Amino acid sequence: MGIEVKVTDSELDTNSIIKSVGNVECGAVSVFIGTTREHFNGRRVKTLYYEAYETMALKQMRSISIAATKNWPEVMNIVIHHRLGEVKVGEVGLVIAVSSPHRQQAQEVVTYLLDQVKTSVPIFKKELYIDGSGQWKANVECTWKEKY
Amino acid sequence: MGIEVKVTDSELDTNSIIKSVGNVECGAVSVFIGTTREHFNGRRVKTLYYEAYETMALKQMRSISIAATKNWPEVMNIVIHHRLGEVKVGEVGLVIAVSSPHRQQAQEVVTYLLDQVKTSVPIFKKELYIDGSGQWKANVECTWKEKY
Repeated sequence: MGIEVKVTDSELDTNSIIKSVGNVECGAVSVFIGTTREHFNGRRVKTLYYEAYETMALKQMRSISIAATKNWPEVMNIVIHHRLGEVKVGEVGLVIAVSSPHRQQAQEVVTYLLDQVKTSVPIFKKELYIDGSGQWKANVECTWKEKY
Repeated sequence: MGIEVKVTDSELDTNSIIKSVGNVECGAVSVFIGTTREHFNGRRVKTLYYEAYETMALKQMRSISIAATKNWPEVMNIVIHHRLGEVKVGEVGLVIAVSSPHRQQAQEVVTYLLDQVKTSVPIFKKELYIDGSGQWKANVECTWKEKY
């Protein structure tokens, strides 16, 4: 299977994603699931929206996945799915799943990809708070603001 | 929910375990899934068996989970399920799932618990190879051999 990256308006199917990376040569599947929190910076969140610069987001998601397979050559399969549009409190916005023969590389690659998704992939988010306020913003950690 | 540790002869239900750690105050769920590989040290594996010193295994699983909540105080829920008995090639033998408001602590705790499960929990395994050979052994990394 190798690398699969996707952005979608539909609900993410964590279970299918996990099954899709499995392989009999791999003893390790590491997964990260990002969900919408009810509180953000101390404020009650009503809902959250994601919007992507889709072409560039997919290109960057693929690029960081390829970088991971070069730096952690044991890794077999990588899937990154990011949801767009409204992602309600408790719902899943991001799934990263990685399979590898052994545990260490699977764990390291998920952490690497996760940090890269948060800092280098052009996906904007807007938290809409219970008081009606909210604004579109890049991820606070992002380093790509000036890039696109 | 807090901490849940279990050893069981039944198949592990990864999907239910993941759902059980979720919480609206948590934006991060990190998961490790250990499966039986078809090859081990270059030999073709027919099947694998786990046997535990159950009382001590559960005690140790709980102890490392408590240690994790002390060292990573943000972490909300921890689940560790280890399967015993026969775990065929491709089947799941271990699931660790951790939820936390933010990603860093969730990732770090899964890595910590995983290393601890492999090195400090008294669970023996036996790979039965395709040629009929195989023997019970402690995890090669284990540090508890002289302890129990």
